[in-house]
Amino acid sequence: MSLSPFETLLAVHECTALMHEYGYRFDHGAGVTVADLFVEDGEWSSPAVTCRGRDELIAFFRLRDEMTDRMTRHVVSNITVEVRSAERATARSIAIEFRGTRGPDGLAAETSPALVGDYEDEFVRVDGRWKFRRRNVVIDFKRSGEVYLRASS
Amino acid sequence: MSLSPFETLLAVHECTALMHEYGYRFDHGAGVTVADLFVEDGEWSSPAVTCRGRDELIAFFRLRDEMTDRMTRHVVSNITVEVRSAERATARSIAIEFRGTRGPDGLAAETSPALVGDYEDEFVRVDGRWKFRRRNVVIDFKRSGEVYLRASS
Amino acid sequence: MSLSPFETLLAVHECTALMHEYGYRFDHGAGVTVADLFVEDGEWSSPAVTCRGRDELIAFFRLRDEMTDRMTRHVVSNITVEVRSAERATARSIAIEFRGTRGPDGLAAETSPALVGDYEDEFVRVDGRWKFRRRNVVIDFKRSGEVYLRASS
Repeated sequence: MSLSPFETLLAVHECTALMHEYGYRFDHGAGVTVADLFVEDGEWSSPAVTCRGRDELIAFFRLRDEMTDRMTRHVVSNITVEVRSAERATARSIAIEFRGTRGPDGLAAETSPALVGDYEDEFVRVDGRWKFRRRNVVIDFKRSGEVYLRASS
Repeated sequence: MSLSPFETLLAVHECTALMHEYGYRFDHGAGVTVADLFVEDGEWSSPAVTCRGRDELIAFFRLRDEMTDRMTRHVVSNITVEVRSAERATARSIAIEFRGTRGPDGLAAETSPALVGDYEDEFVRVDGRWKFRRRNVVIDFKRSGEVYLRASS
Repeated sequence: MSLSPFETLLAVHECTALMHEYGYRFDHGAGVTVADLFVEDGEWSSPAVTCRGRDELIAFFRLRDEMTDRMTRHVVSNITVEVRSAERATARSIAIEFRGTRGPDGLAAETSPALVGDYEDEFVRVDGRWKFRRRNVVIDFKRSGEVYLRASS
């Protein structure tokens, strides 16, 4: 069953909204709930970490929320979504993370990005909602002195 | 009366275009006309300033145009528009302002953003056109030495 | 023959995808194939270079691929596409180029953009596909020490 042009455009819009929601939650103190944007056996990977399944995602994303002095903005740009079927889509995009430490005035002063790279995404539609099946983060630029978030050991 | 999926998508597109127009005018010497993108009793606020109504908006936005050596790009990313009805919508997005001073070669050399934060927007549709009812600028990152634009006193 | 609102939205989406494809190819080692995104007599211009026609575009874009230690991300934001007819469209957008040199760890450390400016685009639809007829790159911000890519002499 092939999608109509309008159904395709709507799927693109919904996957894009999911990508924005991912960043918004991390940037506004709700990183742990990002796990809900993944399917049960969803996967998140970066050069430093691979997490599989809801429990691992929750444990890892929670680490972000615990860094209460850290400010971030997860900018996603150049989003290209390929809708494969009514239930499957993939996307590539440019990932830019602003990251800084809250200063005495409540603001972070580090305005050059900490990380620049790509997101490589796979989506599935479950019960009428698009979710991440897999998000891989490719890093090509890293600000001097920055370290990746790693699972606690 | 509820909107069809297509009407919703169209409203999202039009509100997004309005957000781009806002930046384009500030960045290309027509900041004073940004007031036309707001309804008569529209409001613009930042950590330093609140302007209400067309006259206050014009007086404040004009200040930008007077800084003729300043170059800016008002980047807006991660736009999520929620269409509430045929006449009301809200949006959140990431705001990144590049800001520099034109040098002897005509170019600005400051390429790390001056400000990074969010836009929080309310839109209304008047006579078939979406306009800002309220735009609030949240700042979380500020480049060292930058100051907010303030109303003249 | 005027376009329906849906046909217009679809054209906007396709031109936007073309703009993303342009960046993706440059950033992932396939710069020479960017020429295929232009019509036969297409034109690309910047403050330093003007290239006209497929052969000149190929010769110029190939230079990027030869800089194998260079990493880039061509971010395009604030895209506003004006669809003029079923076969013609224009767009303006903000251009941000991240550019760095791969270090010993495989990553570039320069995370402030090298260049910030605008893209000014003209598109035509040929055989059912949108292509660039002309892309002009406006530069307003240039990181200290950066130079423009120039045609070899």
